[in-house]
Amino acid sequence: MPKKNAFYAQSGGVTAVINASACGVIETAKKHKDKIGKVYAGRNGIIGALTEDLIDTSKETVAAIAGLRSTPSGAFGSCRYKLKSLEANKREYERLIEVFKAHNIGYFFYNGGGDSADTCYKVSQLSQTLGYPVQAIHVPKTVDNDLPITDCCPGFGSVAKYIAVSTLEASFDVKSMAKTSTKIFVIEVMGRHAGWIAAAGGLLTDHNIPVVILFPEVPFDQKKFLAKVDANVKKFGYCTIVVSEGCHYPDGKFLAEQGTRDAFGHAQLGGAAPVVANMVKDALGYKFHWAVADYLQRAARHVASKTDVKQAYELGKAAVQLAVKGRNAVMPTIDRLSDAPYKYKIGVAELKDVANVEKFMPRNFITPDGYGITEKCKRYLTPLIQGEDYPKYKNGLPQYVTLKNVAVAKKLPTFKL
Amino acid sequence: MPKKNAFYAQSGGVTAVINASACGVIETAKKHKDKIGKVYAGRNGIIGALTEDLIDTSKETVAAIAGLRSTPSGAFGSCRYKLKSLEANKREYERLIEVFKAHNIGYFFYNGGGDSADTCYKVSQLSQTLGYPVQAIHVPKTVDNDLPITDCCPGFGSVAKYIAVSTLEASFDVKSMAKTSTKIFVIEVMGRHAGWIAAAGGLLTDHNIPVVILFPEVPFDQKKFLAKVDANVKKFGYCTIVVSEGCHYPDGKFLAEQGTRDAFGHAQLGGAAPVVANMVKDALGYKFHWAVADYLQRAARHVASKTDVKQAYELGKAAVQLAVKGRNAVMPTIDRLSDAPYKYKIGVAELKDVANVEKFMPRNFITPDGYGITEKCKRYLTPLIQGEDYPKYKNGLPQYVTLKNVAVAKKLPTFKL
Repeated sequence: MPKKNAFYAQSGGVTAVINASACGVIETAKKHKDKIGKVYAGRNGIIGALTEDLIDTSKETVAAIAGLRSTPSGAFGSCRYKLKSLEANKREYERLIEVFKAHNIGYFFYNGGGDSADTCYKVSQLSQTLGYPVQAIHVPKTVDNDLPITDCCPGFGSVAKYIAVSTLEASFDVKSMAKTSTKIFVIEVMGRHAGWIAAAGGLLTDHNIPVVILFPEVPFDQKKFLAKVDANVKKFGYCTIVVSEGCHYPDGKFLAEQGTRDAFGHAQLGGAAPVVANMVKDALGYKFHWAVADYLQRAARHVASKTDVKQAYELGKAAVQLAVKGRNAVMPTIDRLSDAPYKYKIGVAELKDVANVEKFMPRNFITPDGYGITEKCKRYLTPLIQGEDYPKYKNGLPQYVTLKNVAVAKKLPTFKL
Repeated sequence: MPKKNAFYAQSGGVTAVINASACGVIETAKKHKDKIGKVYAGRNGIIGALTEDLIDTSKETVAAIAGLRSTPSGAFGSCRYKLKSLEANKREYERLIEVFKAHNIGYFFYNGGGDSADTCYKVSQLSQTLGYPVQAIHVPKTVDNDLPITDCCPGFGSVAKYIAVSTLEASFDVKSMAKTSTKIFVIEVMGRHAGWIAAAGGLLTDHNIPVVILFPEVPFDQKKFLAKVDANVKKFGYCTIVVSEGCHYPDGKFLAEQGTRDAFGHAQLGGAAPVVANMVKDALGYKFHWAVADYLQRAARHVASKTDVKQAYELGKAAVQLAVKGRNAVMPTIDRLSDAPYKYKIGVAELKDVANVEKFMPRNFITPDGYGITEKCKRYLTPLIQGEDYPKYKNGLPQYVTLKNVAVAKKLPTFKL
């Protein structure tokens, strides 16, 4: 096969470790110079491909690329932009092919979640549908941990560790204050449909801390919830509540919906914590504090899980290895072999089986009352938050990398999105 | 002087390092066995003294006491309870003396902020006012950094580091997303009257990140603020906003007192961050995310400042050293000698000069436009967030200590608060 350049892009919400996957892709591509030329990154994701706004990663120093491993966020910019179907917007696919042709791109690495897997799958079909040979490999990424087939998703382990650590610390705090002041602490966490992140709050129960978790998978029952909280306060003196942004009433209405929608049509959420805190105050009279972690949780590279960072890198590396083996329309996966000691291998999934499928918490990961996690869930989660992988610090702050992001010279007319 | 026992209590909002001060007190007291007998801690602060609910710290292992150095929160429980004046509530002071007498307590170490310094000062006057000899030493603690005389307060450096690190990480995140999605990130931080914590967000500007800070010291001007944010978005593509919970309008009304409305028309409950975020959205149309760090910031021992931990311990130690030297009605302080290299010595302040005095940000620490920090402020803040002092981890979580907190046998009749 003649040598081709590679295109790499970050898609959707970024994470503490998506750049570690980028690092894995770029460093591994360099080891296959017989097959892969340059790695061009899309500036702001797939938009960079459509607008021919490509970044030449070979212009970065070796140290800067290595530094991506410990830098959160998306170093090349990400986007929320979903390609429509070939029928609905053929001109976008034709444009992609023009750009790929103009820059001799034969490999397409797309680093994202479920929606992005769908985009990647569509690109993988371009040789069949529009006669342009390209190998499209999806690199899994999502803090929500909701991709199917893979045992876990890079990004999740670190956010789970952040939530577990932060909830532990805040619970110690409220326990100290409970005698005369705050008795209820509510932390709102991400997870629109799947409660994986919220579940991480359940890892504290070994510390004898009363935690009530509100999962998106369990329709909210106000009366039962308040009784549970009250019982905890009466027994322990305080109660910690972890509420998923996706927690909703039986009719599907979210506890807090801000009313705006993103490019994928998803409701923008936020504000479930104050709703829950005030509900408890109104019904039970307990003084509360609440926190909304929002971006802090998914960007928290300073307390990333070593396991997660390692897997993010390995999956970026594996994506390139699959490409050089001639694979197309696939995604490397984490296949768990055992919980303790934790063992896994890198596997591979067909993109057609991944795209647009969401993996929810199994019911047997949630306690019968709906407010906690089972031992089975703990066995699943515990390995994923193992190990610390601290960034280097300078002057008290982490030394995160900002790339030069040098543009590749354009060869085509402008394209209007 | 005959050997006396010591009383130690934690007061007000707890911090990531108040237990490091406790550790300093207890470990140093052990080195002065000729003068100090046991260290009794008040369960839930001063309430423990009033109710004769004392904890015998000698029942803890050496390792557990050492572990306090890296455990956030108040290990003995804290309280929000301010002693009234002697005239207003003489029975409380008489009760304190009864408890001190019953347990041979001659040293009173009180670990808290401005209100607590006032309580400590009142106790220090008991030998004069009620004829009971006790030496009262205040150990400074407050995340707000608003105590006078001392250059800084233990607890502040760590929360400043947390806010600087978290805001850096979240800013990297929003920068990645800004092309098609979130352009505004708002983080709400503590500080009802003083903007020291908010100022920590200004340490990011070396990273070329546009940060707008809303201080309690600068009355809020909506038009000017929106113009500043808009200019940042037009120049950088995004803008980070750090809003102090104490930010208010010229008439004194807090931002958080304004209600915003959710998708269902319900008033949104609490939080300056959502108020600011919605204000920007309404006026400028930019998509936003917001976070409220709340307890997470002050409990974040996992990313504590090494300088802060060290000083917290040293001030606990110094308090005991002052006591054995016969001092009363004083507070050990951090006296800065130079910014770079950072040098300081432990000094001492008279409690009468500390009690009920709040230290605000000097105007020359805030940029002329009111939205940033000056070089002078950076030179002040930078040493305080230096160094990392990670707790040990086990199974992915920090190994924070929970003490046995064995009660001392009561000798007195019950006292009703």
